[in-house]
Amino acid sequence: MLGEIIAIGNELTSGRIVNTTSGFAAHHLFKAGFDIYAMHTIGDTPSLIGEALIRALGRVDFVLVTGGLGPTDDDLTAEAVSEALNRPTMPNLELLYQIREHLNSYAEPPVNSLEKLAWLPQGAEMLNPESNMAGFQLIHDNKPIFFLPGIPHQMQTLLVDQVLPRLSTWYKDRQLASVQRVYKIFGKSETAINQEVEDLTLGNRVEIGYYPVFPDVHLSLTVRGRNTDSVQKIFAATCGRVEEKLGLSIYGRDQETLESVVGALLLQNKKQLSVAESCTGGLISHLLTSVAGSSSYYLGGITSYANSMKTAFLGVNDTLLQKYGAVSPEVAEAMAAGMRQRSGADISLSVTGIAGPDGGSKEKPVGTVFLAMAADREVRVHRFLFSGTRYEIQRLTAQTALDLLRRYLLR
Amino acid sequence: MLGEIIAIGNELTSGRIVNTTSGFAAHHLFKAGFDIYAMHTIGDTPSLIGEALIRALGRVDFVLVTGGLGPTDDDLTAEAVSEALNRPTMPNLELLYQIREHLNSYAEPPVNSLEKLAWLPQGAEMLNPESNMAGFQLIHDNKPIFFLPGIPHQMQTLLVDQVLPRLSTWYKDRQLASVQRVYKIFGKSETAINQEVEDLTLGNRVEIGYYPVFPDVHLSLTVRGRNTDSVQKIFAATCGRVEEKLGLSIYGRDQETLESVVGALLLQNKKQLSVAESCTGGLISHLLTSVAGSSSYYLGGITSYANSMKTAFLGVNDTLLQKYGAVSPEVAEAMAAGMRQRSGADISLSVTGIAGPDGGSKEKPVGTVFLAMAADREVRVHRFLFSGTRYEIQRLTAQTALDLLRRYLLR
Repeated sequence: MLGEIIAIGNELTSGRIVNTTSGFAAHHLFKAGFDIYAMHTIGDTPSLIGEALIRALGRVDFVLVTGGLGPTDDDLTAEAVSEALNRPTMPNLELLYQIREHLNSYAEPPVNSLEKLAWLPQGAEMLNPESNMAGFQLIHDNKPIFFLPGIPHQMQTLLVDQVLPRLSTWYKDRQLASVQRVYKIFGKSETAINQEVEDLTLGNRVEIGYYPVFPDVHLSLTVRGRNTDSVQKIFAATCGRVEEKLGLSIYGRDQETLESVVGALLLQNKKQLSVAESCTGGLISHLLTSVAGSSSYYLGGITSYANSMKTAFLGVNDTLLQKYGAVSPEVAEAMAAGMRQRSGADISLSVTGIAGPDGGSKEKPVGTVFLAMAADREVRVHRFLFSGTRYEIQRLTAQTALDLLRRYLLR
Repeated sequence: MLGEIIAIGNELTSGRIVNTTSGFAAHHLFKAGFDIYAMHTIGDTPSLIGEALIRALGRVDFVLVTGGLGPTDDDLTAEAVSEALNRPTMPNLELLYQIREHLNSYAEPPVNSLEKLAWLPQGAEMLNPESNMAGFQLIHDNKPIFFLPGIPHQMQTLLVDQVLPRLSTWYKDRQLASVQRVYKIFGKSETAINQEVEDLTLGNRVEIGYYPVFPDVHLSLTVRGRNTDSVQKIFAATCGRVEEKLGLSIYGRDQETLESVVGALLLQNKKQLSVAESCTGGLISHLLTSVAGSSSYYLGGITSYANSMKTAFLGVNDTLLQKYGAVSPEVAEAMAAGMRQRSGADISLSVTGIAGPDGGSKEKPVGTVFLAMAADREVRVHRFLFSGTRYEIQRLTAQTALDLLRRYLLR
């Protein structure tokens, strides 16, 4: 089962925006048992759009087209497809009425081109008429073609919720059984993981992939074949061996994030957390609160960027700051202890360091970070030296803090 | 001057790795005055590589091929090109001796295929023989073809240092002058901006693009032509008209972010900021501190997720919380006022709302947000109703808070 992906947009061919949607689609299609023959990125040029589509239809089983579905003048996909496949555009009446109703809700209806969204090539079927997302399907020469918006989150939602199930139904008998799992690992290099895993002699039916996805490494295991039972059996055995070998280094799998795993552990252990951040500037708090329901275990945090904030809000002693400096194990300890006492949390994390690009010294170069955790009856301080850009140092610090907490909760 | 980019690798077509190198190349080529007709991503399949290359040579002026140049079995670009262009591979002797010398430096030479790197299609010229990076150039049918490694930093270095100057020299007389600017806009839809800008009758020499890049819309203006002076003149006039029309709606341009713009304004106005966040969970603080040097205007912030944190750290009255609820204009006001008083900042922002997916009610549905700003002698509260996922609501809230601050600082 082969497909091609065509991404449309001058913003892509001019390099203003990096095309991430094609890779996302390829990844999910591959996991679902479909192979991608080629991916193309072309500008908003009707003749090129038509040419790429027609060539793809001549050699693969399905085509995914993204971009160019919006209401503005440079959105030309529907017209191009109409022309290339000889299917005149016609109004989708339901959609047209919906748009008119929306326009009528304005006191002064905007003079705009929204109605254009309802004009689709003959035979087009909206992918999700309930939503307000553009996106339609055409069956041409008995092959499905999917047209999705270029906006990443819309494209991703429609791909997963609409395209994958429709494609699987259409090509039910020709699809290979396929299982894949991604293990997420923090704190080990790609090469180190490779060495540990290759010894497992996994057999040649298992595809292993290692890819660094900053700040983690993802390890993917894929098994594909005609026989669902044997695919499942090989997959389960392989996963078991990999999990045994890598143990605690694996923090999660597939859609899990370190913050969602830590959240679940806090909930399980009935512990409440608070955080005092300096060099990470709120990033740890932001990661924790990106998880729905985090208010049940996360009390909150402080970004004590200025020394005056450390004193006023955390009770860090001024003489401590003078004597050891804000970036010191002593101040990290006082921040975590002060945070725990004042917030009433069971566990408090604190972070102080130099994210750069300026502010480093010989004794404490850029990337120096002190991490403290106050839990039970003690405060433990750890020293790290990270390297990278400002963002990378902040992100590595946040991930290290969350991973320390995860390992503590798993003791 | 048209080119095509062909990226090679099964890791790309399976979506395991997102292709960022093609976008990088397109961006730099476009800036240098070269247009990209199409970009293709294909697997490590010799026949496909040859087919894509030959088709590209038939319609554009140059081709850039990335990936498949390494020493492992799945690196097949050189063989595929040799076959497709009928240029037998021959050893590059200088490179071959270099590799042999390298291999001899091992006590036990590794059993590997490094020598393969020296076998190139007839006529190939190494791009940078001084370095240890693969990468060569072929002139075929009087058109340059560049072959670069797929490893992003090597590809980027060779593109900038070798490909761009070689291409400019080769096509000196045919290169167009080109200028582009991207305006960043928050709080207006793509359609609304389109309407305002299309009235300006900009003339057909200006390409306009509208791109939603959540939570912003980017508006790009591009002018290209033979005559550098006239290109510059048209560009300046157009930018002037667009800036006049959109006014304060434009918060920045090109590489600027809302947080970098706000930071520069705080610095200019010699104002210090602190932030009290509830539903944004540290995101505003994280955005502010992602800017290098932010410690000179940002004191810090509090994520008062739990009510107890609002009371303990911001002095929000318990009866206020009981009477109006945590998500209320009264609490937003008390948070901003408390934050300003306790941090000693000139300006304090506060945010309280319901990011969802749970926690909404009829009077205060998910997406309800109160934003307050304490500055000068007053605290102003604003109410918003955002829609979207949890992350989208958090991100829209953060951007709205920063934009309120920007407009305040520009009064």
